[in-house]
Amino acid sequence: MEWDAWGVGEFRKQLSPQVVSLLQAALGVSAEQAPPPAESDAVLRPTALTPAHRDALEALLGADHVRTDDATRLRHAGGKSTPDLLRRKDTGPQDAPDAVVLPGSHDEVLALLQWCADQSVASVPFGGGTSVVGGVDPVRGDFAEVLALDLRRLDALVSLDAVSGIAVLEAGVTGPQAEALLGAHGFSLGHFPQSFQFATIGGFAATRSSGQASAGYGRFDDMVERITVATPSGTLDLGRGPGSAAGPDLRQLFVGSEGTFGIITSVAVRVHPVPETTAYQAWSFPDFETGAAALRTVIQTGAAPTVMRLSDEAETGLNLALASKVGGESPTAGCLSVTTFEGTAAHVQSRYAEATAVLTAAGGTALGEQPARDWEHGRFDAPYLRDALLNAGAVVETLETATTWSNLSNLRGAVTTALTESLAGQGTPPLVMCHISHTYPTGASLYFTVVCAQAADPLAQWAVAKRAAGDAIVAAGGTITHHHAVGRDHQPWMLDEIGELGGTVLRAVKDALDPTGILNPGKLLP
Amino acid sequence: MEWDAWGVGEFRKQLSPQVVSLLQAALGVSAEQAPPPAESDAVLRPTALTPAHRDALEALLGADHVRTDDATRLRHAGGKSTPDLLRRKDTGPQDAPDAVVLPGSHDEVLALLQWCADQSVASVPFGGGTSVVGGVDPVRGDFAEVLALDLRRLDALVSLDAVSGIAVLEAGVTGPQAEALLGAHGFSLGHFPQSFQFATIGGFAATRSSGQASAGYGRFDDMVERITVATPSGTLDLGRGPGSAAGPDLRQLFVGSEGTFGIITSVAVRVHPVPETTAYQAWSFPDFETGAAALRTVIQTGAAPTVMRLSDEAETGLNLALASKVGGESPTAGCLSVTTFEGTAAHVQSRYAEATAVLTAAGGTALGEQPARDWEHGRFDAPYLRDALLNAGAVVETLETATTWSNLSNLRGAVTTALTESLAGQGTPPLVMCHISHTYPTGASLYFTVVCAQAADPLAQWAVAKRAAGDAIVAAGGTITHHHAVGRDHQPWMLDEIGELGGTVLRAVKDALDPTGILNPGKLLP
Repeated sequence: MEWDAWGVGEFRKQLSPQVVSLLQAALGVSAEQAPPPAESDAVLRPTALTPAHRDALEALLGADHVRTDDATRLRHAGGKSTPDLLRRKDTGPQDAPDAVVLPGSHDEVLALLQWCADQSVASVPFGGGTSVVGGVDPVRGDFAEVLALDLRRLDALVSLDAVSGIAVLEAGVTGPQAEALLGAHGFSLGHFPQSFQFATIGGFAATRSSGQASAGYGRFDDMVERITVATPSGTLDLGRGPGSAAGPDLRQLFVGSEGTFGIITSVAVRVHPVPETTAYQAWSFPDFETGAAALRTVIQTGAAPTVMRLSDEAETGLNLALASKVGGESPTAGCLSVTTFEGTAAHVQSRYAEATAVLTAAGGTALGEQPARDWEHGRFDAPYLRDALLNAGAVVETLETATTWSNLSNLRGAVTTALTESLAGQGTPPLVMCHISHTYPTGASLYFTVVCAQAADPLAQWAVAKRAAGDAIVAAGGTITHHHAVGRDHQPWMLDEIGELGGTVLRAVKDALDPTGILNPGKLLP
Repeated sequence: MEWDAWGVGEFRKQLSPQVVSLLQAALGVSAEQAPPPAESDAVLRPTALTPAHRDALEALLGADHVRTDDATRLRHAGGKSTPDLLRRKDTGPQDAPDAVVLPGSHDEVLALLQWCADQSVASVPFGGGTSVVGGVDPVRGDFAEVLALDLRRLDALVSLDAVSGIAVLEAGVTGPQAEALLGAHGFSLGHFPQSFQFATIGGFAATRSSGQASAGYGRFDDMVERITVATPSGTLDLGRGPGSAAGPDLRQLFVGSEGTFGIITSVAVRVHPVPETTAYQAWSFPDFETGAAALRTVIQTGAAPTVMRLSDEAETGLNLALASKVGGESPTAGCLSVTTFEGTAAHVQSRYAEATAVLTAAGGTALGEQPARDWEHGRFDAPYLRDALLNAGAVVETLETATTWSNLSNLRGAVTTALTESLAGQGTPPLVMCHISHTYPTGASLYFTVVCAQAADPLAQWAVAKRAAGDAIVAAGGTITHHHAVGRDHQPWMLDEIGELGGTVLRAVKDALDPTGILNPGKLLP
């Protein structure tokens, strides 16, 4: 990916003059913007890697797989949250890993971690680098040196059990690589988070990723059949059956562990045949509450589509405004919902008919396929749009949570109010939009997008808003993150989530596996 | 429950003379059986509870809630495995808890555990007492005294969120109590393991129970939204959303922890409206492989019924023989499969049509509703039949595992061979039957029932067979238990399941929460 932006340059978006005018008129974004800095303007703190350590790492991994050049270090200096991107554009010296190392196998990861423990060198696992919570920040903690452990060379489909629908994929396989490797055998993983184009299997597992087709295929944690983890204390191979009562499910201790207990080197994941067919249907609901109740009825009935989403009035309205400004089709007034149905022809027909009947009875108006196809076509574009908006002088950021159906409205209101008041209080009243992208029988996720004018110090400006939103989420009974993970950014609320004693349990596990604490210091664990 | 048998006396089964003759002719069961002992014949080791400890417990819980009489101790002397029942009938002195204590609230459980830790008294949580793996055996470990901590007074429906479909149930609520409490509000838990009539919510969670309707409603671990656990180090309240990426899922560390990390005092579980309607269909398949492939296609397609089972040729044949001997209807030749479909009328119609088409295309012959209704009617009877068979001189026991679809045939063969050879080698060739009762997209459970003549020492006889079966399961790649948990009986294979380092992780968690080791010593952890 680009050093200072999401994705790759060829897909960068430009804002139309009309959108820029809209930002200035509606949000007070300044018309005067300095041009973004060049890569040569970025100044990194010099590497602290000792020559002896460099020699030892080269002996372990080969000289090609130990990198200390600034271009590589800069691309491992953090993830892709808005604060990350603002920090990258900073002109002062930036933190970066002292070296980027690229092990080529589970055994090399294992040897590397044992070496790091012996030599007191911190190690930050790095997959696609798409973290939006500071999960890959090069934090050295109490150590003199910190490595980014880039897993891109672990890129194989190790095996495919076509009868059982299980593929073993190495941790560095990206979303598109997984689909290509599996597609060659007629299979699909069906995991499409917004980070899909760059994020990796190991990252999906380490962060409890959830994809846009979660209603049909489940969260990534649901897909994990077996997991292999390298730790400074040895290897864990977990998962012996599709269901088991052999004690605690240790897989679920390592899924979501964000590289603090060990490094996931391969995952056996549930896969499915490439769908025979896909049906699309978009819906309009008069308001968010009606739409949410409709989605709830569908998922509680068991008629779940593969994808089921609902935008609130503000998000639907902005899409409408953007579409009309840029000459596209107006999707809908009210609240737009998108459903897709994948599988065998008979299955799609059956689910489509059942879900359509439920959504219609619940007050939905069918809009036809096109808005659903449009959503699918553009579903990975939002981060590119964010870069364009940032460069135009806006702050754009997202955050997400989840709660029970009965608490959804309360939580949405509390977070919207917190974001609105905290940013308005800084003189930059925001537009706050929300959608439901993941539904469960008992509740749903809420995904917020915030846009406002940049203040003089946008990092400090957003920090105030993020703190207010996190506090509101906790106070209103939501989870601090539905699918973005904890990293550094959600640490302040981690003990609200699991309690002091839950923190004690996590630290006990950490101490057992990583007694010297070299694994991803400063992340996840408070 | 009865002190020496499953369930309650009024439902005890009698074998017909024809079945007794069949046992003698087919399996060599002896015609000479001593009458079962009376309760007054059972001799317990005397209680080791000191008067000072008795006084302290009475001060904590009230005198009515501290029991040291033999009748109560005997009913907490173990679970309901065949070895348990054989031990209960033994005439030598038996182990029993030194006292049975009945706390009435989470806070009393918490105070009790802190007292046990302070006083070095072991504590074995006891729900319905239906363990078939030695999970409630009164093992005192290195301690002088051991209590059975009976949770029956924690029997409340604490709250019901009808919109979200979440009920908070206390740990001592039994299956029928849960259905009654929820049914009064139009809801159902839908968790029907064979132990349903006696087992408890806390036990379901602590052992990763799986019910007969798991295809429709999931395993119990899937149903757990939130969990409250009392430990000697304090209380854990886990679960903040229907989906979360806030680190490892600690719920899944306590689900399946079998009272070794703490005592589950309440669980927020997913519930659903009492189904509008239920459809039944039974199927015949020419052989087990064809039937298994058909079930696989159904669940991989996403057309899963609420219940979906398949008996192998031997189990189908025995049911046929028993039915004809006792004058019932012959269910089928080949392999019998049962499907049921629950939910709204539209949902049932949709699923029924889709699954029926898949099963028919996969080689199934529809047999109509009646065999499926018959199965449902008798689905909790097997343990009563076991008592009758034990009293007639047979050994009857069950064991279960799970694996991927591609490995299912291999595993079934390996376990059948191990059981057959180990029992035939002792001069008691068995009948080994098998069924699939739980299906997943990636695999299925296998549930074995073994019947043979009792040898002179039936405990030693079964121990040999159990060891052979467990070794075969591990060697053939299955999980050592799909839904019976670990207890004492599956401990020998626990490190095969999770590895040495997995054991280290569990011990680290145990040490953090139960540093003196008073919680259920000798269970789960090797």
